[in-house]
Amino acid sequence: MEIERKHRANEAERDDLVAGRNPVIELLKSERPVDKILMVRAERDGGSLSKIRAMARERGVPVKDAAKEKLDQLCPGISHQGVAAFCAAYAYAEFEDICRRAGEEPLFVVLADGIEDPHNLGAIIRSADAAGAHGVIIPRRGGAGLTAAVMRASAGAAGHLPVARVPNLTGAIRELKRKNVWVYAADFGGQDWCTVNFDGAVALVVGGEDRGVSRLVRETCDGTVSLPMRGAVGSLNASVAAGIVLYEIARQRLGIKAR
Amino acid sequence: MEIERKHRANEAERDDLVAGRNPVIELLKSERPVDKILMVRAERDGGSLSKIRAMARERGVPVKDAAKEKLDQLCPGISHQGVAAFCAAYAYAEFEDICRRAGEEPLFVVLADGIEDPHNLGAIIRSADAAGAHGVIIPRRGGAGLTAAVMRASAGAAGHLPVARVPNLTGAIRELKRKNVWVYAADFGGQDWCTVNFDGAVALVVGGEDRGVSRLVRETCDGTVSLPMRGAVGSLNASVAAGIVLYEIARQRLGIKAR
Repeated sequence: MEIERKHRANEAERDDLVAGRNPVIELLKSERPVDKILMVRAERDGGSLSKIRAMARERGVPVKDAAKEKLDQLCPGISHQGVAAFCAAYAYAEFEDICRRAGEEPLFVVLADGIEDPHNLGAIIRSADAAGAHGVIIPRRGGAGLTAAVMRASAGAAGHLPVARVPNLTGAIRELKRKNVWVYAADFGGQDWCTVNFDGAVALVVGGEDRGVSRLVRETCDGTVSLPMRGAVGSLNASVAAGIVLYEIARQRLGIKAR
Repeated sequence: MEIERKHRANEAERDDLVAGRNPVIELLKSERPVDKILMVRAERDGGSLSKIRAMARERGVPVKDAAKEKLDQLCPGISHQGVAAFCAAYAYAEFEDICRRAGEEPLFVVLADGIEDPHNLGAIIRSADAAGAHGVIIPRRGGAGLTAAVMRASAGAAGHLPVARVPNLTGAIRELKRKNVWVYAADFGGQDWCTVNFDGAVALVVGGEDRGVSRLVRETCDGTVSLPMRGAVGSLNASVAAGIVLYEIARQRLGIKAR
């Protein structure tokens, strides 16, 4: 499977670099690991650079002197105000890590198609973990990445469950199908969620907040799983819909007989 | 049932009164209905009172002159900066409205115990609506109310489904039990969600983000419904857990046979 190489701490990558005085102060207040801070030697800084220096000392984060030109170069077009921090990147897993986690069990994997809200992506990763899935696959573009907000919303599950990132989901789905994994889209107009046979290796594609699973992705899947909608609104929160179907898969895999 | 009287637009109530220049500007940018704006006639206002006047005109909200003393009296201890807005209150329903909605069907109601995150409360109301519940009951204290953020997170479901507010949940649960409604807490250590008999009138109590259903509330319920936890984290997002159990109740009520 064409899964990307492990995410490296790349100085040019927005996810790993936080610039500006207040952003760096907020970063230091958060739980996100920080590798180092680059700071210009300022004669007058209004106190906030000193504050950052003190906070960094307390957290054991090294602060290195840097020329203004170095920061300009690192943060092109960003008002860095003389300070930038490098965060430890959350490591993406490989598809092989997900397979390894499955071990002798038939594979159980979740694909998130265009989930942009970090609360939703975090909650989906948390539900996948609780339902016994072996990993989550997200696309490189068109959705949230493994950010600090996603990690928080997952209640830490994103630190336990392998999350892999792929160039595109349809390619990943085709590869899963070649490996005899049955791939279902959670969307409208399909089979009632609790009547689908989820025996064997299974993958569930959950769609984004507004548009659901994208047409091409849905057409690449083996089938569609749906939830009845009895109310006025006619749709569920993306992470809630995902959780309901994931727990039906969990029920069948655990062999719990429903009433 | 001791349900509070319908929520009136009370001038002293924080939910309905927004004071200060930036808060009123933000309010006018939002979708929340605004009844009227009170404003002092200022000689110099730095432009923001004129801006509020223009925004109000565009939205068709009446702006009335008020003496500074009137505003001081309306917003005691709040820096009103010469402007305050009255919002239309989201109307809470009565328990009777929920029963009326049930009609001939056995009652199906959701009680939210200490859900503080507006995203979660909104998602729970949305799921209750989609699962065919007749209403949601929330406590007067110890959780989010029907705010603009909850309304948004419910995707509008909170405008369709009756949401009632009670002085305390244990009283409401005792009253439901007297009306032969079976009340279940969604929490740890109970019966597997899909093996519970949800025939007849049923109420589901869902607990808050961190502490779950409170002890006293749980002890007042007829039983506890649980979800298996296979992962490292050992709990689900509150609105996801609620959605999974609500859809099991929906499945049984719709007579859909699970595999």
